[in-house]
Amino acid sequence: MGERIWTAALVVIGDEILSGRTQDRNIAQLGTWLNAQGIRLAEVRVVPDVQEAIVEAVNALRARNDYCFTTGGIGPTHDDITVDAVAAALAVPVEVNAEARAALEAHYSARGLELTEARLRMARMPQGAELIRNRMSGAPGIRLGSLFVLAGVPHIAAGMLDALTGQLEGGLPLVSRTIGSWGPESEVAELLASTERAFDGVAIGSYPFFKEGRVGANFVVRATDAAVVDACVGALAEGLRAAGHAPVEGGI
Amino acid sequence: MGERIWTAALVVIGDEILSGRTQDRNIAQLGTWLNAQGIRLAEVRVVPDVQEAIVEAVNALRARNDYCFTTGGIGPTHDDITVDAVAAALAVPVEVNAEARAALEAHYSARGLELTEARLRMARMPQGAELIRNRMSGAPGIRLGSLFVLAGVPHIAAGMLDALTGQLEGGLPLVSRTIGSWGPESEVAELLASTERAFDGVAIGSYPFFKEGRVGANFVVRATDAAVVDACVGALAEGLRAAGHAPVEGGI
Repeated sequence: MGERIWTAALVVIGDEILSGRTQDRNIAQLGTWLNAQGIRLAEVRVVPDVQEAIVEAVNALRARNDYCFTTGGIGPTHDDITVDAVAAALAVPVEVNAEARAALEAHYSARGLELTEARLRMARMPQGAELIRNRMSGAPGIRLGSLFVLAGVPHIAAGMLDALTGQLEGGLPLVSRTIGSWGPESEVAELLASTERAFDGVAIGSYPFFKEGRVGANFVVRATDAAVVDACVGALAEGLRAAGHAPVEGGI
Repeated sequence: MGERIWTAALVVIGDEILSGRTQDRNIAQLGTWLNAQGIRLAEVRVVPDVQEAIVEAVNALRARNDYCFTTGGIGPTHDDITVDAVAAALAVPVEVNAEARAALEAHYSARGLELTEARLRMARMPQGAELIRNRMSGAPGIRLGSLFVLAGVPHIAAGMLDALTGQLEGGLPLVSRTIGSWGPESEVAELLASTERAFDGVAIGSYPFFKEGRVGANFVVRATDAAVVDACVGALAEGLRAAGHAPVEGGI
């Protein structure tokens, strides 16, 4: 294929994800959003609310990806340490951002509320921060070059991603099509491998399931060239049919 | 507190998690299960179906945690490369495990199916593997000392964790209690910080939400000593009441 592949990484910050209290939704949400930007989510780390852990992850991942995102830990309470950790990772000071302070003042005064010291904490940002506006919350996300600091609450993170849509340089979006079939995936393992080899730039994933008392699998064909994906899906469907596994377009 | 803290790490293996196609459920499932074993899930990495990425993550995480788990990539198809990657990480050869082979033979012959070459792939294991039996699938999980290789399909991974329950040495299980209150968390930020400081070994997490048109937050108090958790929850409830935020036992 030869085109440049753009990659991003994500650092999910939060004890609540590691303890199992909260089901993460930002990995899948960011991965899906990045596909549409022509950027591949290449790796993710989940770290606790501990500054050294955040610094290590952010620095390792931003060094080897085009973009790095974080989610979580940007609220007003004592367990929200992302801003300080990111500033430490970038070796820049934390300061009260005038634009963020004005946004918070507007947000709270519109609600008849005071800008307390705790709320003002949300205007503390690493030096050089640009704000990522969102309509869901007074606290903006933060952009520092190729590093993006997003909220942990998934619908607020989604609002920040909306604001970034079309802003990041990427390559060709990844195209994918799914076909499924009933029966054990082990019966078509060789077919999957040989079909993948036959089409340049294609990856086929096989995802088994157990439904209605029967086993089956969905096969996801991915590439940046839609015509190649279509040709590969056609060949795979034919192979499945020949093997007695009726293909189901769109998956099961 | 002074007691030894046991930690575990997880490597989630799979392009489908990074692309957003599949919502991971194993992080929360493993975190919850580990709590009950007195072990803390300390860090997670999500990596693609690429051997070098798996090797790097497994070796980094097993070096600094008591236990390391992987999920995903142990099926019969070409994209299932976990066994080879783990063997490479441990620098041991891959061989057909006699016990796993016998288990697969029994599983498939009971269903009137042949043990094909693709299915036999699931008996390939790093040298020194012990099997983790499970009733859901013919393919067992793998234990290699402190390293545990589990299935990616969450209910099959759950069966493997069931088989491991009570088998791993851990410390005191983490106890947690939740109280919630309506109103912005920023109004009680100082209360949360001072309450956490007042109780040794306690961590308080604050998790804001937006429900029924109003904001609120749940506060999770965690420690290994249940009496300390209870005392801290009592103090926090009193503080919330004094601040005009009626506490809701169990959270909102």
